[in-house]
Amino acid sequence: MTTIAIDAMGGDNAPTEIIKGAVDSLQVADSKIILVGKEDIITKELSAYNTKGSVEVVNATEIISTEEAALAIKQKKDSSLVVGLNLLKEGRADSFISAGSTGAFLVGATLKIKRLPGIDRPALGTLLPGAKGFTLMLDSGANVDCKPEYLLQFAVLGSVYMEHVQGIKKPAIGLLNVGTEKDKGNVLTKGAYDLLAASSLNFKGNIEAGDIAKGTVDVAVCDGFAGNVLLKTAEGYSKFIFGTVKKELMATPIRKIGALLSRGAFENIKKSLDHSEVGGAPFLGLESLVIKVHGSSKAKDIVGAVKQSHKFTQNNMIDKLKEGLQGGV
Amino acid sequence: MTTIAIDAMGGDNAPTEIIKGAVDSLQVADSKIILVGKEDIITKELSAYNTKGSVEVVNATEIISTEEAALAIKQKKDSSLVVGLNLLKEGRADSFISAGSTGAFLVGATLKIKRLPGIDRPALGTLLPGAKGFTLMLDSGANVDCKPEYLLQFAVLGSVYMEHVQGIKKPAIGLLNVGTEKDKGNVLTKGAYDLLAASSLNFKGNIEAGDIAKGTVDVAVCDGFAGNVLLKTAEGYSKFIFGTVKKELMATPIRKIGALLSRGAFENIKKSLDHSEVGGAPFLGLESLVIKVHGSSKAKDIVGAVKQSHKFTQNNMIDKLKEGLQGGV
Repeated sequence: MTTIAIDAMGGDNAPTEIIKGAVDSLQVADSKIILVGKEDIITKELSAYNTKGSVEVVNATEIISTEEAALAIKQKKDSSLVVGLNLLKEGRADSFISAGSTGAFLVGATLKIKRLPGIDRPALGTLLPGAKGFTLMLDSGANVDCKPEYLLQFAVLGSVYMEHVQGIKKPAIGLLNVGTEKDKGNVLTKGAYDLLAASSLNFKGNIEAGDIAKGTVDVAVCDGFAGNVLLKTAEGYSKFIFGTVKKELMATPIRKIGALLSRGAFENIKKSLDHSEVGGAPFLGLESLVIKVHGSSKAKDIVGAVKQSHKFTQNNMIDKLKEGLQGGV
Repeated sequence: MTTIAIDAMGGDNAPTEIIKGAVDSLQVADSKIILVGKEDIITKELSAYNTKGSVEVVNATEIISTEEAALAIKQKKDSSLVVGLNLLKEGRADSFISAGSTGAFLVGATLKIKRLPGIDRPALGTLLPGAKGFTLMLDSGANVDCKPEYLLQFAVLGSVYMEHVQGIKKPAIGLLNVGTEKDKGNVLTKGAYDLLAASSLNFKGNIEAGDIAKGTVDVAVCDGFAGNVLLKTAEGYSKFIFGTVKKELMATPIRKIGALLSRGAFENIKKSLDHSEVGGAPFLGLESLVIKVHGSSKAKDIVGAVKQSHKFTQNNMIDKLKEGLQGGV
């Protein structure tokens, strides 16, 4: 049995959707759940479900909102985020899930949890949808200034993760660059290319940003600045395009009928782009698993993150990551 | 009257679509057109039109293909790209348009054409569609390693361009970053923020990559690595989404009928995302205008680029850019 702590107060839909997700996840993963946050609120929400004592509540009196910056972690020592991370540090939980402020989450996890041996900087991984399934991109924004050796470390973390959590054998690794030729890129990627090419990873060379939507590789490594730009561009243009499609389809009665008839198409697309199954963004390179789920997460996203956490712990991923870092770097 | 040289041999649809576009543009811009490339082929293609001697042909025996790398510029001295750039250098043309290899184009223009005073590195500008019209993003890929002062120079170039070619008064400038707060970013953007804030530009602070699709600013500045990632991600995900929509709409007979009824919606979207009106990507910071149009350009894209070139020269943009660089930097 694994123990998963969940920040009940973080995210736009906290605490209701977070707690619902925690309760729902009891059906799918053989885990003990600890909900962290204002005890009276959580207990009241929980009373709507029949959880038979399988959910523990740990009190935390403060809340760090989704909009608050990294500094909040130092100011709010009794926040659900800090208290939850302390559960990991004290060995009372195997993993921790939060939908709260990304900045505070990254700084908090880095301060509270030890790095794995061989890791200079932990990296935030994001699973991005594409034509051939999901690509794990890391770093998605934790480290805006990187050195070539960090990118090699990200590649090892990503490779082990995709192999043992997502079940992809010998994951294909790509280096995010401005062209596919070997000599392309900036100082960082040129340095990283040589390190990756010399490693025992299944390195496929440089990829362009357009390759993510094509699904050319299983793991894409980049610095956190480029990763953040890629992630936010993909989100921004997807939203813009679907928004424009919706507006145009509602513009005339005939088009509305057309949209009604082809409704199934849009439902399928929504399903194929749904992130909830992938279970949030793992922050990899630390001695415990911490997972950042989107600020707008609903119950099903929490369930996805619990599933992923459970699999991570059950598969002894921390040991596997340590092995990978010894062999691969 | 302005004189515009066009690379007749560059791009996936050369020479037919390029030459058609050159001829079509005679109707919309009071320009003299010089087509550069294999004289026999161009003359044969031109014989299908009644151009009454308003198109000049300059012979160039070699072709640099869209896939060829930057090095080709040194190996093929009689290519349409090199010969066209020489026309600019010799003052025989005011501007030059090519749909050929981006790498060769950027290197060639930088080698052949002098930089404007105050410019360390010229920048490739791309007009990206969004909810409130187009945002000029520069640099889109010419300079993968940048210093803060380059980003300030890009901002000046972009501001003058958007004001005088696209007609936007006091264009709003944004610095592409990983968050909107003042203290966000990497070493480069932190340095650039201070320079931009101290300038006389209409600087709106940091923007995130998602702001491009929202159209928050008129000009977005960034290093060419981040710019290339943004551009290729936007292209990649747009293609992926529209491809998925099409596939899903064609999957059942009922959906096909729905798609037929709502056809107008998709035609409008296609029109609103159409790049041809914006006229290609200007490579700014040189003493002449060079415009890179997409490798897949059709006749209408060439017409757009000719219009833009004509306006640029008619408005004495080189003088205006010089003034901006003296005042703004």
